[in-house]
Amino acid sequence: MIRLIGSAVLLFVAAAASAHADDPLPSWEEVKPKHAIMKFVEQVTAEGTSDFVPVSERIAVFDNDGTLWAEQPAYFQLLFAIDRVKALSNSHPDWKTEEPFASLLKGDLKAALAGGDRAVLDIIMATHAGMTTDEFAQIVKDWIGSARHPTSGKRYTEMVYQPMQELLAYLRSNGFKTFIVSGGGIEFMRPWVEAVYGVPPEQVVGSSIVTTYEVRDGTPVLLRQPKLNFLDDKDGKPIAINQHIGRRPIAAFGNSDGDLAMLQWTCLQRRLSFCLFVHHTDNEREWSYDRQSHIGRLDKGLDVAAENGWMTVDMKADWRRIFPN
Amino acid sequence: MIRLIGSAVLLFVAAAASAHADDPLPSWEEVKPKHAIMKFVEQVTAEGTSDFVPVSERIAVFDNDGTLWAEQPAYFQLLFAIDRVKALSNSHPDWKTEEPFASLLKGDLKAALAGGDRAVLDIIMATHAGMTTDEFAQIVKDWIGSARHPTSGKRYTEMVYQPMQELLAYLRSNGFKTFIVSGGGIEFMRPWVEAVYGVPPEQVVGSSIVTTYEVRDGTPVLLRQPKLNFLDDKDGKPIAINQHIGRRPIAAFGNSDGDLAMLQWTCLQRRLSFCLFVHHTDNEREWSYDRQSHIGRLDKGLDVAAENGWMTVDMKADWRRIFPN
Repeated sequence: MIRLIGSAVLLFVAAAASAHADDPLPSWEEVKPKHAIMKFVEQVTAEGTSDFVPVSERIAVFDNDGTLWAEQPAYFQLLFAIDRVKALSNSHPDWKTEEPFASLLKGDLKAALAGGDRAVLDIIMATHAGMTTDEFAQIVKDWIGSARHPTSGKRYTEMVYQPMQELLAYLRSNGFKTFIVSGGGIEFMRPWVEAVYGVPPEQVVGSSIVTTYEVRDGTPVLLRQPKLNFLDDKDGKPIAINQHIGRRPIAAFGNSDGDLAMLQWTCLQRRLSFCLFVHHTDNEREWSYDRQSHIGRLDKGLDVAAENGWMTVDMKADWRRIFPN
Repeated sequence: MIRLIGSAVLLFVAAAASAHADDPLPSWEEVKPKHAIMKFVEQVTAEGTSDFVPVSERIAVFDNDGTLWAEQPAYFQLLFAIDRVKALSNSHPDWKTEEPFASLLKGDLKAALAGGDRAVLDIIMATHAGMTTDEFAQIVKDWIGSARHPTSGKRYTEMVYQPMQELLAYLRSNGFKTFIVSGGGIEFMRPWVEAVYGVPPEQVVGSSIVTTYEVRDGTPVLLRQPKLNFLDDKDGKPIAINQHIGRRPIAAFGNSDGDLAMLQWTCLQRRLSFCLFVHHTDNEREWSYDRQSHIGRLDKGLDVAAENGWMTVDMKADWRRIFPN
């Protein structure tokens, strides 16, 4: 199923691209962000100039939630976890009376999350640990191929941003290696991002839980443990970029203050570089939120972007289309 | 300097290759390990057969110390650290009386290492932490471009194994992506392995210390802290492969029990896969050591390899040449 969805998305991108053979970014309005991106790509690919960057150094990093796909009314990974709590509830009779599970099972998300970070962590660990990495990948594949978004009714993979799909393809066609650097779980993303975004597993960086290695009856497995290993958010993003990629990016794309350190690390350097925040301004086609939002808060980032001349995409004004269909 | 060394090595490989245009592995004797490698590559690249593996899944992982370059009389990274202790000793007068530094500065390595793991950790942290990642990369580049091995007098990059260089190139020419997965420091390897082995920084996995992010006078830096982050050895190797690559390799190359879990993870699976231990048997051209060695001990690995039919290279008998010159 995930292959089918991925293929459908890629076919759509391919069709859109061939309809505008001379325009790699047809879903972007002819305004500043698009022109700035294209100018940057022309500069770093112009051989013999001082701005030229060799292919091996053309590293572009993308946040996922709110940058490549939507993140409302809650991070999709949390919606996955909630679906899993429901699916697993029969074998956990204790959850009927134990928070945050009891409220979740009654459909009261607000009460369930009243316990704050502790409640979220309990939900994540109860649904993301206790199985092998292969088993978890299969659970994610099954979910992403069948689950539907609570308000749009769409598959989650249909809620990726079409303009960003075009941007990923455009950068790759100009020799860039595109990486995802997300606060989301690295093993939650890897089972589907290659089919949907064209980003292979080895170019996915994310948060992780501890795994342990053992050989069970002659078969090696990695077991997912209920313990955080790395939180790939805020300062964690440049740390993880250095750890995982080992090169400093020249382009970074995010949508929240959680991405600010990644954009600083990318754009506060001597080489020509490009940084862009996706600003959620479209309450009709998507959602509108920024400085006061609990999810994807973009507050300090807006100020720092303005100070440094980084681009900001006004989704309502600058994107012709939000989703692939 | 490192570029020059790298180019020299690559030129040598190129020259060797053109002299044997039809033989991708000219430094390997015409015996079992070479034939088994070539048969495996033919099988996984034969389209339309049940053993065929798509290019994106052709992941090969290589240990570094003792597998791609030598590791005697001590891991080269420890020799780097010792050189650094000497270079830094003027600004550390306390080291004249403080172990393990005092013995090191007197040239008594044995006494310095009498403190065991604690002494090694003290030496590593005193020389690998307290600077930015960029500063450390420059220190490593300067050292690898000038330092000489204590007994051979060669540059360390001249002590890479020519047959393994050919193997890396051969696998890549057949669509494999080659990764280093080493117990050595990830940031000790990255400054030179691309020039020397053709392995880009994003395909290097290794041990690491904690880094922290800060913006200093408007410039973002990553600071290296004197605290272990991850030890990429034994069970750590499959854990790091999963974390970093997110795909299971189909070929793995090591030389010690520290690589055993990596070889199990690679070869105890349903797909056709290939595992090989480099066995140090050549006391004339290199060093001879295995079951009793403190460095690069290969004991359980030899037994498990025999049980599972994995290849073992007898360096003395199976390699025509050890080093590039």
